[in-house]
Amino acid sequence: AIRDAVLTFFLRREQETGPLAGLRALVTAGPTHEPLDPVRYLANRSSGRQGYAIAQALAELGADVTLVSGPVTLAAPVGVHLVRCETAQEMQAHVMQALPCDVAVCTAAVADWRPETEASQKIKKNGDMRPPALSLVPNPDILAQLCALAPGRPGLVIGFAAETETVQAHAQAKRQRKGCDWLVANDVSPQTGIMGGEHNEVMLITPDGMETWPRMSKQDVAEKLAARVGGWWHDVQSAGCG
Amino acid sequence: AIRDAVLTFFLRREQETGPLAGLRALVTAGPTHEPLDPVRYLANRSSGRQGYAIAQALAELGADVTLVSGPVTLAAPVGVHLVRCETAQEMQAHVMQALPCDVAVCTAAVADWRPETEASQKIKKNGDMRPPALSLVPNPDILAQLCALAPGRPGLVIGFAAETETVQAHAQAKRQRKGCDWLVANDVSPQTGIMGGEHNEVMLITPDGMETWPRMSKQDVAEKLAARVGGWWHDVQSAGCG
Repeated sequence: AIRDAVLTFFLRREQETGPLAGLRALVTAGPTHEPLDPVRYLANRSSGRQGYAIAQALAELGADVTLVSGPVTLAAPVGVHLVRCETAQEMQAHVMQALPCDVAVCTAAVADWRPETEASQKIKKNGDMRPPALSLVPNPDILAQLCALAPGRPGLVIGFAAETETVQAHAQAKRQRKGCDWLVANDVSPQTGIMGGEHNEVMLITPDGMETWPRMSKQDVAEKLAARVGGWWHDVQSAGCG
Repeated sequence: AIRDAVLTFFLRREQETGPLAGLRALVTAGPTHEPLDPVRYLANRSSGRQGYAIAQALAELGADVTLVSGPVTLAAPVGVHLVRCETAQEMQAHVMQALPCDVAVCTAAVADWRPETEASQKIKKNGDMRPPALSLVPNPDILAQLCALAPGRPGLVIGFAAETETVQAHAQAKRQRKGCDWLVANDVSPQTGIMGGEHNEVMLITPDGMETWPRMSKQDVAEKLAARVGGWWHDVQSAGCG
């Protein structure tokens, strides 16, 4: 509690004088859970760690941060406005409510599909009954939607791509397809230990090209990315004053 | 750590002289996660709290407890042999390895169905691609299987039924269908707050009839149930000496 109070005091000062002072950031994090019935759901693996670390790092540089988070077991970052939700549709609604913003960092592993219908009562398994047919429908594509906003598109939209094969090609294609400015890609194959772990190993793809960052803690990835956002913000403000 | 050491010391003494000394107990807890691909899975809602509390309560009365647990975020109970797993098939294998036992308490919310195939790479969503057809197949019924073991059936098999409607009728039918001795039933409709919460409100169905227990903490439910197991164990041992 003392730590939180000190941090809150520090963050307030940063919000006046830090490199990201005045910047409104939106971060999405965690998985979404898509219910079949009151007890069953379809989910994505995502601990939310990378997104929470990014929200914290942006706040520590003075940004005003809203974190829209799917179901995770992480503590709320200090000095960040945390909005919890469960499904992709709820996340979409909260993201749209959090606009306008200057930077959107979409780390959430939003489920691409959801069950077409949600049963109001538990679907019963009775003896030899055949499994229910599970019909899926596409979820809203929150990242693509943010990128396509006009007016109201955030000045900088950063997407994330969790891949398990041909990471670079998939990530470059995703950046184009979604229309985001930067894309952070990583390989979440189980053998990497990245999913749910403390470390990450990412590529940053921007209009200028691709950088491969060495394996480092998710906190270090967050701080490095926040510093890059700081560079962008500095340029934006310099241009605005020019 | 000091608390754990004291508890471990206490548990060792109970295992020699406690009311459940000599009893081998198997407890299953938590949900199972059934993968579609490396990042997506089908899941049941289950915090594992009730099962973990029961494992702890049985150990505190001196039982030798193996807890087979699906993915949860709970700390391992002290003095309990914890085996972690993810899918129903893994849980089945660990349960069978944990036999023989005197009492099996099956609190796990085992997924009734799993995706027929698990993709080795992340299923891609590309533009207008239609959602994948998700074909489900039945999972092993661990509770029914335990009840049908011959030889090797645990002397007392306790099932759990999480229902959202007509709880009593569903639970009584489930006890018959599965062949378990006792069945603990509860209403996990979202409005009860039981799922994931600290409290529970259960019915205990035995061959002698049905009891409705008042709303109480999950720990109290665990202690009450462990005491009932103690009564059963006392009778078994008295009969054995008769």
